[in-house]
Amino acid sequence: MFQRIEDFHDWLGEQERSHSFRVRLAPLDELAGWSSHPELGTIRHSSGRFFSIDGLTVGTGHGPTRSWAQPIIVQPESGILGILVKRFGGVPHFLLQAKMEPGNVRPVQLSPTVQATRSNYTRVHGGKPVPYLEYFQAPRQGRMIADVLQSEQGSWFLHKRNRNMLVEVTGDVPVLPGFCWLTGDQIGELMLIDNLINMDTRTVLSGFPSPKRQEPSPGDDAAAMSWFTEAKERRTLTRKQIPLNEVKGWLRSPERISHELDRYFSVIGVTVEIDNREVTGWDQPMIAPCERGIVAFLARRAPSAGGTQDDGELQLLVQVETQAGTLDVVEIAPTVQCAPGNYDADRKPPFLDHVLSAPASRRLLDVVYSEEGGRLYHAENRYLIVEVGDDFPDHAGEDFLWMDAERLAGFGHYGNHVNVEARSLMACLRFLDLSRKGGTRR
Amino acid sequence: MFQRIEDFHDWLGEQERSHSFRVRLAPLDELAGWSSHPELGTIRHSSGRFFSIDGLTVGTGHGPTRSWAQPIIVQPESGILGILVKRFGGVPHFLLQAKMEPGNVRPVQLSPTVQATRSNYTRVHGGKPVPYLEYFQAPRQGRMIADVLQSEQGSWFLHKRNRNMLVEVTGDVPVLPGFCWLTGDQIGELMLIDNLINMDTRTVLSGFPSPKRQEPSPGDDAAAMSWFTEAKERRTLTRKQIPLNEVKGWLRSPERISHELDRYFSVIGVTVEIDNREVTGWDQPMIAPCERGIVAFLARRAPSAGGTQDDGELQLLVQVETQAGTLDVVEIAPTVQCAPGNYDADRKPPFLDHVLSAPASRRLLDVVYSEEGGRLYHAENRYLIVEVGDDFPDHAGEDFLWMDAERLAGFGHYGNHVNVEARSLMACLRFLDLSRKGGTRR
Repeated sequence: MFQRIEDFHDWLGEQERSHSFRVRLAPLDELAGWSSHPELGTIRHSSGRFFSIDGLTVGTGHGPTRSWAQPIIVQPESGILGILVKRFGGVPHFLLQAKMEPGNVRPVQLSPTVQATRSNYTRVHGGKPVPYLEYFQAPRQGRMIADVLQSEQGSWFLHKRNRNMLVEVTGDVPVLPGFCWLTGDQIGELMLIDNLINMDTRTVLSGFPSPKRQEPSPGDDAAAMSWFTEAKERRTLTRKQIPLNEVKGWLRSPERISHELDRYFSVIGVTVEIDNREVTGWDQPMIAPCERGIVAFLARRAPSAGGTQDDGELQLLVQVETQAGTLDVVEIAPTVQCAPGNYDADRKPPFLDHVLSAPASRRLLDVVYSEEGGRLYHAENRYLIVEVGDDFPDHAGEDFLWMDAERLAGFGHYGNHVNVEARSLMACLRFLDLSRKGGTRR
Repeated sequence: MFQRIEDFHDWLGEQERSHSFRVRLAPLDELAGWSSHPELGTIRHSSGRFFSIDGLTVGTGHGPTRSWAQPIIVQPESGILGILVKRFGGVPHFLLQAKMEPGNVRPVQLSPTVQATRSNYTRVHGGKPVPYLEYFQAPRQGRMIADVLQSEQGSWFLHKRNRNMLVEVTGDVPVLPGFCWLTGDQIGELMLIDNLINMDTRTVLSGFPSPKRQEPSPGDDAAAMSWFTEAKERRTLTRKQIPLNEVKGWLRSPERISHELDRYFSVIGVTVEIDNREVTGWDQPMIAPCERGIVAFLARRAPSAGGTQDDGELQLLVQVETQAGTLDVVEIAPTVQCAPGNYDADRKPPFLDHVLSAPASRRLLDVVYSEEGGRLYHAENRYLIVEVGDDFPDHAGEDFLWMDAERLAGFGHYGNHVNVEARSLMACLRFLDLSRKGGTRR
């Protein structure tokens, strides 16, 4: 445990210095252990495990682009993302791990206690045992705080999801090298630092129950669910896996697969050398987005019973979003979630300009986070929460809804309702004191 | 409105007498408007709408039968099941409809205010407008009580679901011929009658909020969700649509498709003549189960804070169930749900004997209901709730869990968590006073 946050940074610096880590780009066609099907093009590992990269055609009944084809990561098995919780002096502490991942811009980030695919923890690749796994597999000791299958990026993964777990224990827990206990306040402080709290930690922490646990009124509850149900009915999503070689609009070279307009992302290869993971080196394909994205909630305070806005419930403008890999037509997403360069100037997503032009005084949060560093290469998003003025409309179209933050957390307790980008922002809301206007570091 | 329930029965008798209705079996290969693909065998309507009957292979990683092939109904579009609610003298009344359906044993049953597939209400087949539809389609008046996509029988339908809606209005509602207002108490009384409240009414009513609205403690909440999540992880479900002609173990004649052991169900054809529906007659294929099934909850009272069992929360022994058409690996199902004749004597489902041998004094509910009469022919289940003795075990294996009835209702507010058979029993729990031991009619 760290008395001062400076002590944490000293510890993290030691972690970063004590391990060597090297990631080099490598031609997609020369990755050890990986091969492409000679006719279909599908990229697979020789063991048949881990994941594959295949082609997908997508048809949706809405939006400016109603159908397209793209490469996509297919990873049918789900893993465990688990954080161990223990109270010291009554204060919950979270056991996090300083972990290197090949796709990270800042190589070492704070990951969950356990972050393991099924291939990892069943040790298909013959690595070391996953530490602390026993706390998250039956028969478990400890009290389950949360345990739910949650989706990951639908733009890049087909139906991928991981089990998000929070387990509270009371007995002694040995702290292994590379692990540390942090309080919620400390995590909140570290969340203001770019690229430090990794995606898996953020999604798990988004499920840590709020002490408020205010239940929404039955009416609001039903109205929010109805909005979500109606979107599922209004939209369609048809998909078909196709050979990677038949994905139209994408160009394949021995080095990489890229979109013909240099938009969206590329499929690249990397060679990893590392000395503190289960294995010491490997090759793998990765998805590399073309640019940093924007993920933002517009926020407002609902008028309180007293009639003033300052102490009312925080409300977020949520939208329904359909992506290539979404399991069930739509999920609830942030107000804005996009890579701006993917859109022509006359087709910018709604509210993007509003978010980008907001003065600092309205930005309750403004920080850059990495997405999952095990499959995604230098995938960063700028995460913002932007307060709107009183003149902002109540109704922003059928795809949008002002929703109490607590109601959104309620949806988050069930899987496949709230997407991973929204859950990242919810973790910030849960662990940061956002009432400090302009209190972020930018 | 009916002052006495006898008045309702008089009204229903009039409804039954005032309409002619005839259903005859017809050879599958001679249904007007329907044809089979010459090579694949798939049965489709000439319009391409409504539904089709196709083949499916199913692989599961558990249970005595781990893989099989079967015919299945494919109905990608979902419809609206909506019940209008209005308070008269402060008491909620529900607008139900006396509706004939071709598959019903008792032809006229009480259906929701609106029970319409998308083909129905968009009038693909050129029928009459669907009455009261405007209350359930945007822009709506009234207050949304519930609105969620719910699954239907996974044994017979692939991913079928319908939108379950309850809308409360305050203004005048004209009562059209064939419709009536019933109170919750009256519906409870009618639920004790065999084959009167249809499946669609039951599933919609299961979502009517309990006045208790007791929220489960966060710990119980997480434990129940964890059990459900773990089952999704433990089990696998792989499926592939195949040509109906290639379904192994099933025999096709010009008349019907049946299993070689005469188990499960047959696909048959019917010719319908009717004078009060959107159209006056049609042919269609239907699924006809081989025998009446058993659907049952084992139930107990949790010890209350005062230490006595009589006033504790009602708990139900729920199980996770994987069926051919289940959208997401498992759903929460009743303790027992089976057609006994489908099993060899040495492989009977758990607790079936317990349910069937329970004395009348332990049967809190015992009634026969029809399943959906638009696609299923004479599909009946005997629905039971059976109280267990004090010596019944707390732990009944990893696929079972004792769950507070209120917690189960919480899962029911989200789609694809609780299956349609369990929701039928939940509707009984919601509308019947089950504290009257042995108060049912058998």
